[in-house]
Amino acid sequence: MRLRVDPLPTEELVYPDVVLVVDVIRSTTTAVALLEAGAEALYWVADLEAARAFKDADVLLAGEAGGLKPPGFDLGNSPREALEAPVGGRIVVMSTTNGTRAAHAAAKTAKHVLLASLYNAHAAARKALELATEEVAILCAGKEGRAGLDDLYTAGVLAEYLGLLREVEPEDGARIALALKRAYPDPLEALGLSAAAQALKGVGLEADVPFCAQVAKSPLIPLLSGRVGEALIFKGSLPGQS
Amino acid sequence: MRLRVDPLPTEELVYPDVVLVVDVIRSTTTAVALLEAGAEALYWVADLEAARAFKDADVLLAGEAGGLKPPGFDLGNSPREALEAPVGGRIVVMSTTNGTRAAHAAAKTAKHVLLASLYNAHAAARKALELATEEVAILCAGKEGRAGLDDLYTAGVLAEYLGLLREVEPEDGARIALALKRAYPDPLEALGLSAAAQALKGVGLEADVPFCAQVAKSPLIPLLSGRVGEALIFKGSLPGQS
Repeated sequence: MRLRVDPLPTEELVYPDVVLVVDVIRSTTTAVALLEAGAEALYWVADLEAARAFKDADVLLAGEAGGLKPPGFDLGNSPREALEAPVGGRIVVMSTTNGTRAAHAAAKTAKHVLLASLYNAHAAARKALELATEEVAILCAGKEGRAGLDDLYTAGVLAEYLGLLREVEPEDGARIALALKRAYPDPLEALGLSAAAQALKGVGLEADVPFCAQVAKSPLIPLLSGRVGEALIFKGSLPGQS
Repeated sequence: MRLRVDPLPTEELVYPDVVLVVDVIRSTTTAVALLEAGAEALYWVADLEAARAFKDADVLLAGEAGGLKPPGFDLGNSPREALEAPVGGRIVVMSTTNGTRAAHAAAKTAKHVLLASLYNAHAAARKALELATEEVAILCAGKEGRAGLDDLYTAGVLAEYLGLLREVEPEDGARIALALKRAYPDPLEALGLSAAAQALKGVGLEADVPFCAQVAKSPLIPLLSGRVGEALIFKGSLPGQS
């Protein structure tokens, strides 16, 4: 099984098989937390306006502008808040910038797209191997075209666990991610140093970082199951569930 | 001094100050070797046709197609060959794909663009600090939109040496590169594992890899000094030389 890690989405990437999309601070962590809280489906859209276009009585809007909940939205982008939110059986439209862009880049060519974070790392790795026939790729969202320490570290955690489950052939990006993972034994240290964590501190949301740094706390994996217009629809799946 | 590493060129990157462009296997190593051999200037162009347009009696063409010297070219892209080539006082037009693309991405906004490799790593780091006022960025060329272990490792060597010369504030990419550097004490091991090295093996040019893995053997730094049409003109500079 080929094991591939891309630190950033770029136009020319082609994915033949399974992609794990990582935006650990915070959108892929929040996505898992929303499923834990009982959300029926997640619609990933690229901006706040696209989210507002979905607004109706049965739909909740989640997102951020400068880290905070935008006007008219039901939820911000905090996984702590998501876990406690009254989302049972409902569709949550999530507006994310870097996360959606990465997911769209993956969905252009991949057979299966999953959302991965540290929070669901082991389940996501298992699911990826169940679905893959030749390659598991991990695509980091990064931040406005720049690589994120937090995302690439998470890719390293995923890569290491994938290597425990199955014999893998790591390419360049996977070796980079594995080296990074091994350089920081404490996930909270790695995530805390990232630009994404520093930005949260700037808006008083630094308590989200320890949440995002928890490893393998959820068995749920958001799996791409369709589209509505430009929105990507993710539904919850579990390892071992077809 | 901010210390930044980008594992890949992307459209949206903005460089306020100094950029070290790295394509260690092989174009930035070969560029240094050509200057060592006495070349007057290097013209970096994006493809073989653009190189051929410069052909005249005083100009040599260097480049590769599938790793090998293209028809009608004077030189391939081997640093071993470059060091022995009769290039004294002449212009060498180098056709490189990933290297030129990265250099153009840097040159769009940067004040100074330098070519760096392991071969000139310490000189390039010193020169970068001489020129910089706020930020030294290291831009890895990668390979067709994917991160290269060889380039990011070289970025780690540069970043570590920059940190010895001056107090630096590493951002996410720099921390990733530093972790990678520290994971591989032997440069030849890191470079040898890369996709770029494997591709050279496929065409019988694997002896270029140990050449590219030599650290700090040259004081020469190719420095962007102008353009001719789409070509970037690099001339040799030394640390301490204004």
